[in-house]
Amino acid sequence: MVIDALADRIIELKNPTVVGLDPRFDMLPKFLRDEMTDAYGETPKAAAEAFYEFNRRIIDKIYDIVPAVKPQIAMYEQYGADGIAAYQRTIAHAKSRGMIVIGDVKRGDIASTASAYSDGHIGAVTVGSATHRVFDTDFITINPYLGYDAVEPFLDNCKRYGKGLFVLVKTSNASADVQDLITERGPVYEVVAELVGKWGAGLTGRHGYSSVCAVVGATHPAQARRIREILPNAFFLVPGYGSQGGRAEDLAACFDKKGLGVVVNNSRGIIFAYRDKYKDEYGEAGFDAAARQACIDMREDLQRVM
Amino acid sequence: MVIDALADRIIELKNPTVVGLDPRFDMLPKFLRDEMTDAYGETPKAAAEAFYEFNRRIIDKIYDIVPAVKPQIAMYEQYGADGIAAYQRTIAHAKSRGMIVIGDVKRGDIASTASAYSDGHIGAVTVGSATHRVFDTDFITINPYLGYDAVEPFLDNCKRYGKGLFVLVKTSNASADVQDLITERGPVYEVVAELVGKWGAGLTGRHGYSSVCAVVGATHPAQARRIREILPNAFFLVPGYGSQGGRAEDLAACFDKKGLGVVVNNSRGIIFAYRDKYKDEYGEAGFDAAARQACIDMREDLQRVM
Repeated sequence: MVIDALADRIIELKNPTVVGLDPRFDMLPKFLRDEMTDAYGETPKAAAEAFYEFNRRIIDKIYDIVPAVKPQIAMYEQYGADGIAAYQRTIAHAKSRGMIVIGDVKRGDIASTASAYSDGHIGAVTVGSATHRVFDTDFITINPYLGYDAVEPFLDNCKRYGKGLFVLVKTSNASADVQDLITERGPVYEVVAELVGKWGAGLTGRHGYSSVCAVVGATHPAQARRIREILPNAFFLVPGYGSQGGRAEDLAACFDKKGLGVVVNNSRGIIFAYRDKYKDEYGEAGFDAAARQACIDMREDLQRVM
Repeated sequence: MVIDALADRIIELKNPTVVGLDPRFDMLPKFLRDEMTDAYGETPKAAAEAFYEFNRRIIDKIYDIVPAVKPQIAMYEQYGADGIAAYQRTIAHAKSRGMIVIGDVKRGDIASTASAYSDGHIGAVTVGSATHRVFDTDFITINPYLGYDAVEPFLDNCKRYGKGLFVLVKTSNASADVQDLITERGPVYEVVAELVGKWGAGLTGRHGYSSVCAVVGATHPAQARRIREILPNAFFLVPGYGSQGGRAEDLAACFDKKGLGVVVNNSRGIIFAYRDKYKDEYGEAGFDAAARQACIDMREDLQRVM
């Protein structure tokens, strides 16, 4: 079960970090931007090729100390088909290095449409007699606003293809317009947490965690503790560490006694460390080594509270 | 303003139909599937090329009687980069024929990520000194679960690029797990309807409607009437007509006195009419003519209640 593979790797590496592969063209090293615009012009293709090369070098420098990466598909999708090709190649390369890949797609639609998303991202599509695993990510994030029948096609492929989900429960952003509405059964996010527990009931692995997991923002520690009570058997994907203001201390209540139960995402703080914390030490040419050093720092910070 | 362009075209054609371009490889005419698998093998590329050709021929047969098309990106995305290329080409072709295009993407994410989706789908991205309008759809659908700060980047591009949104308020599927929860301020979908009204306040066109619109399932007529009370100035995108059980009569309360305020989507009932209602009359070779005839039937049905 994929949740066991994730948990095993966290134990092995003593590290619950997920590196968010969310490149931005303007923030890539100049030599990489120049190489690709020289080859392809100032086109979406150039941006996409630069993204892949940037990701490839970072993956190659961190795969032995970090269990998982989480490419945010929006960063790629904004460049159209070229961007999606870079997203697909990034997933394939990370998997070839033994990393677990969480596709941050936040899809959600009615059942027939959800089936198409599910087949593409965590299942297989057929063309005539041929079957293709198009994205083949290990986990994806999904949006629960459309309810169970929109989630079911994803659960089916989790069972069939050994995949997992992170369902949006409480996100790390400030707007609480919908998630914090108080219903007859508590805040919306608590009701969604209950649903996530139900949806994941048949997918529990040998560490006691389900392959149906929850996105829980680190920027709301009290809410995270409450969601942990509702969902004792769900891994939390915690965004917001570092750049969005989340701290390791705020996560302590989410971990279990074995140091499991949480994966902590950091995007900019890792992949753009060469522009910031490790600017002088590594510079542009060493962007990948700077990312590795930032991962080591983050691992140490998290190990204090695991 | 794009909402005026949509309303003008509805008045001109006396038709509030949106044709959902949601192809499925197994349901395409055999000659089209064979042509593409002969050329590209049984690959995602073959499916994508067949989708584009299928769409192109339907668009060419309906653009003079139907104001808008709504490609569902999931159908394309499941085939990866090749599928997204077909989605982009479908949008471009429909626009070249003067049709308004609603990209059914249902995206929703935190602000920095929402900006990427917004720039790609309804804005522009930059690569060095070059600017690209990658998808350039007129409208997209979005998911409100993450609240205002996740919607703001889309509103910004609506203002800047003259685009519009359809925000999921009440979807056409059966599961009411989240949308029907009763809050202190009424059901979740009513609160979301109020938010949509606020978000769209600065984007009202000369027909009195905002470019920030709402997705309201035709399968819930009583709820649709209530949402109309809350949102007198929002166009409704109504899915569920035909195959999902929605009827023209159920829509009557949503239209205003000028016959405006609603666009009604039909996907399978139009694009696959050649397999069903008009199988004998048109056959596979006439799939596009069958789609046109199905559009004419639907227009007549809707004109009874407009």
